[in-house]
Amino acid sequence: MAAAFSPAAAATALRFLKSFSGASPPLFSLFNNPRLTHSVAPLLLFSSATVSRQQRAFCSVVSAAVSSGEATKPEPAELEKGARVREFRKKFKIADIKGGPDQGLNRLGENLVVRGWVRTLRVQSSVTFIEVNDGSCLSNMQCVISSDAEGYDQVESGLISTGASVWVQGTIVASQGSKQKVELKVDKLVTVGTSDPSFPIQKKRVSREFLRTKAHLRPRTNTFGAVSRVRNALAYATHKFFQENGFVWLSSPIITASDCEGAGEQFCVTTLVPTSREATDSSVNAIPRTKDGLIDWSQDFFGKPAFLTVSGQLNAETYATALTDVYTFGPTFRAENSNTSRHLAEFWMIEPELAFADLEDDMACATAYLQYVVEYILENCKEDMDFFNTWIEKGIIARLSDVVEKRFVQLSYTDAVELLLKAKKTFEFPVTWGCDLQSEHERYITEEVFGGCPVIIRDYPKDIKAFYMRQNDDGKTVAAMDMLVPRVGELIGGSQREERLEYLEQRLDDLKLNKESYWWYLDLRRYGSVPHAGFGLGFERLVQFATGIDNIRDAIPFPRAPASAEF
Amino acid sequence: MAAAFSPAAAATALRFLKSFSGASPPLFSLFNNPRLTHSVAPLLLFSSATVSRQQRAFCSVVSAAVSSGEATKPEPAELEKGARVREFRKKFKIADIKGGPDQGLNRLGENLVVRGWVRTLRVQSSVTFIEVNDGSCLSNMQCVISSDAEGYDQVESGLISTGASVWVQGTIVASQGSKQKVELKVDKLVTVGTSDPSFPIQKKRVSREFLRTKAHLRPRTNTFGAVSRVRNALAYATHKFFQENGFVWLSSPIITASDCEGAGEQFCVTTLVPTSREATDSSVNAIPRTKDGLIDWSQDFFGKPAFLTVSGQLNAETYATALTDVYTFGPTFRAENSNTSRHLAEFWMIEPELAFADLEDDMACATAYLQYVVEYILENCKEDMDFFNTWIEKGIIARLSDVVEKRFVQLSYTDAVELLLKAKKTFEFPVTWGCDLQSEHERYITEEVFGGCPVIIRDYPKDIKAFYMRQNDDGKTVAAMDMLVPRVGELIGGSQREERLEYLEQRLDDLKLNKESYWWYLDLRRYGSVPHAGFGLGFERLVQFATGIDNIRDAIPFPRAPASAEF
Repeated sequence: MAAAFSPAAAATALRFLKSFSGASPPLFSLFNNPRLTHSVAPLLLFSSATVSRQQRAFCSVVSAAVSSGEATKPEPAELEKGARVREFRKKFKIADIKGGPDQGLNRLGENLVVRGWVRTLRVQSSVTFIEVNDGSCLSNMQCVISSDAEGYDQVESGLISTGASVWVQGTIVASQGSKQKVELKVDKLVTVGTSDPSFPIQKKRVSREFLRTKAHLRPRTNTFGAVSRVRNALAYATHKFFQENGFVWLSSPIITASDCEGAGEQFCVTTLVPTSREATDSSVNAIPRTKDGLIDWSQDFFGKPAFLTVSGQLNAETYATALTDVYTFGPTFRAENSNTSRHLAEFWMIEPELAFADLEDDMACATAYLQYVVEYILENCKEDMDFFNTWIEKGIIARLSDVVEKRFVQLSYTDAVELLLKAKKTFEFPVTWGCDLQSEHERYITEEVFGGCPVIIRDYPKDIKAFYMRQNDDGKTVAAMDMLVPRVGELIGGSQREERLEYLEQRLDDLKLNKESYWWYLDLRRYGSVPHAGFGLGFERLVQFATGIDNIRDAIPFPRAPASAEF
Repeated sequence: MAAAFSPAAAATALRFLKSFSGASPPLFSLFNNPRLTHSVAPLLLFSSATVSRQQRAFCSVVSAAVSSGEATKPEPAELEKGARVREFRKKFKIADIKGGPDQGLNRLGENLVVRGWVRTLRVQSSVTFIEVNDGSCLSNMQCVISSDAEGYDQVESGLISTGASVWVQGTIVASQGSKQKVELKVDKLVTVGTSDPSFPIQKKRVSREFLRTKAHLRPRTNTFGAVSRVRNALAYATHKFFQENGFVWLSSPIITASDCEGAGEQFCVTTLVPTSREATDSSVNAIPRTKDGLIDWSQDFFGKPAFLTVSGQLNAETYATALTDVYTFGPTFRAENSNTSRHLAEFWMIEPELAFADLEDDMACATAYLQYVVEYILENCKEDMDFFNTWIEKGIIARLSDVVEKRFVQLSYTDAVELLLKAKKTFEFPVTWGCDLQSEHERYITEEVFGGCPVIIRDYPKDIKAFYMRQNDDGKTVAAMDMLVPRVGELIGGSQREERLEYLEQRLDDLKLNKESYWWYLDLRRYGSVPHAGFGLGFERLVQFATGIDNIRDAIPFPRAPASAEF
């Protein structure tokens, strides 16, 4: 509030802010009503003339005048009955005006209220244009205010600036401009919260690198607002797809002391070191130790070392072999020290697991899932997708439409190797059967051989895949599959799981893994084992795929990476 | 597979298992078809007579006979085109038969396939009843098999036992029994996976304490199957409610190095101690230290101490002040050493945050949300709710119906204290204005004063509430609210947030909190601050409230508590 604005204007704003107290509940119920009648509106508008010095008195006036008749504080006599809770109403937002097919033309002549944050301000000789955004859609509401409107003094005094929050009442009129069909002819304007001139996101374009240092403000930009909405739509479409197909959502555990995990770098979760504020000056000697100088894990919270999960798959298998079809959607972690645009230390994963299913069913499910969520955003996030198509990745809508319409291609690892060996192209990494495919190989197959169509490669050599994958009859490969998509590369990885106890035990032995640690996982094969399969999808990769955003740190609200866990 | 069954029968089962290889894809596409025609069915059924010794050969026969015409492995000539991925179809399940209003009577005469796990087996002189459950609903499919059915030898040989997985084909007929309307008259039975006699969940009832040690198998019981489905429905209804009301789902970070958290015991997340398998013998001396003997946090993954989040609220506020209405739904953590039936170290929280909203809006939203999700499960989980009503908490349906129908009551903390002071009852903890309400007080208010109706207590003394809550005009209380419900007690806690920079800074000073740590949180008040409010709800508490399950460890698939992080 250290902004340099005139004291009089500041007083108006502060008075408004102060009026939001527990004692003035009917105020916001009116805010929920998009069509304010003129008879009550003047009471809400806090021009200097109508606001008394005593805020409580003012609030009482408003309360008395606009109260719906329900007491919000009970009289002593009716105390035992208690007061009722107000009815909830969906908030009226800019998307409700501009989000429809006619972009607001159906509301011409309506008098209504818009609340949001000022994106830009253009002062012209006769009128001023204020672009207001409330995050409900990409579009701003263009508010046109002339000098005779109530509250115009706030424009003159500089109270209204980029970043400020405002409450605007006016009439929907056809717009003269070409950028929008309608605009709001302002009757009254109220500054809800001013914006200090230091506001770091001014009109000029700022880099996404810079915005990562302002993760708390970046959702107020076009790009991050759009990413947030599309990310939300992808998450909801994920739930819709699995729910409509009879899958049960499962929360797999985040902290695990199970010895089954192991692959990949894990974060340790502990209470042995002093927590929170004192942590920075914690002495190593304060850590409990055994007489041999080892960390005394028996004194830790879980009585033994515990870690952040790297996958919920093994847990999902336990539920799939009871409920048939399940999926997880939750955070997973990798303590990999890789500071790249493709890796996060904390990311969300979707891991469906299907019982009575083989690799073919798994691929079919992965394909249907991806097509469903992509179609969902193309239909439900048109404006944001147009934005990405114009500003982030030209052609992304065509690329995604292809994904929805084309049937995906599958081929075996062996066939893929054959294709690579006969390719008229030299690769940095030479190809031999048994090698892991590098991204240059994957790109060649998806982009050059199959022209941008998603490709599933299946039946990988068992030595480059996880222990739990089902061994194929050839004894050399496992029923694994990776789905490769243009731009992102591997988006989905899955497999049929080894459901045969003797094969699984053999595999654990071969890999010198401790069978006792896997007792519960092996139990699933002892008691009513069934063929089952599943896959995992990194949600932020999906957001990248669907928005064209280059850096994975821009696909999640608060990215975690080496040396980076702010906010 | 160490079960004591006859070698011949075992061979049948193993052959069946082996046939689920990557080479037999059309098998499962038929499995997806609920109405097998008799012309293809015999090919699927693996009686000893039709299965050749060569599995590959057998699979080829099946493939050739029932293939839809699409090659699943490309011929060399068409390699570059790739093979297509099979089409995904929703799996046909027992809920599709018994879940409708007529409980299967609409399918009389249909020939179809059921797959699931054997719950019980009753051998009678002429027929055998096998109860099969696939987790899609509480109901088993009662399969009636007589000695002339194909595969009956597996019953005689003991291959079919509790816990075994089966594939059953037959005809839906009216049931003679009173427990179900229809049953499956079995034509053919196949053991998919046998169950070792050590299967720990036999017909006799087992305690929920015991089942916690078998968390990987407990979803195969009636109680945990029902809890899983209702938990799933509550989660989906949560998303539906917020999505339908224009809220954006936000993934708040799990790992945080922000100094804003603090309150409550936190888990430390670190890579300074050796990870995973070697962790049990890790030397304290291996931990990097500064020359002063302190832990050298600069060498940790995030370059400073990092913790598991206790709440996503502050992060949600950053997005609410850009997108207006948001909600989180993700895991949160408490390292509290309390081994009770009410606490978990890891639990899921739902935290909505509403901009341009005050405490009245917050209470209205919390109430509407709770009513929506409760109504959703009453409508969509009837069978499971009847089960809870009969076996877990008598009267729970009436209690929940009340919640949907009644308008919730609100009263101020001051009024609540007044009620308690004049109560004709002695409390263990004496009541004075300023004290924290104990559960005996809360119970008195919800159960005795308001007869079981949910009650919201609001406007608590500021000294017993968090720093970020908005100060009321009286200078003594803050705009906080707690929703109390019968049985569970506090289910929801929320507040209007302090949006006035000067008040918030003053509060941080009063509490001797370091303002610099809160720079980004304070920024929200510097740049377009708006009145906003939100609440938090512990998801497992909601599951308890909605199912009547006593112990919170039974409301989450894999509970984490002191000394307990198995599976």
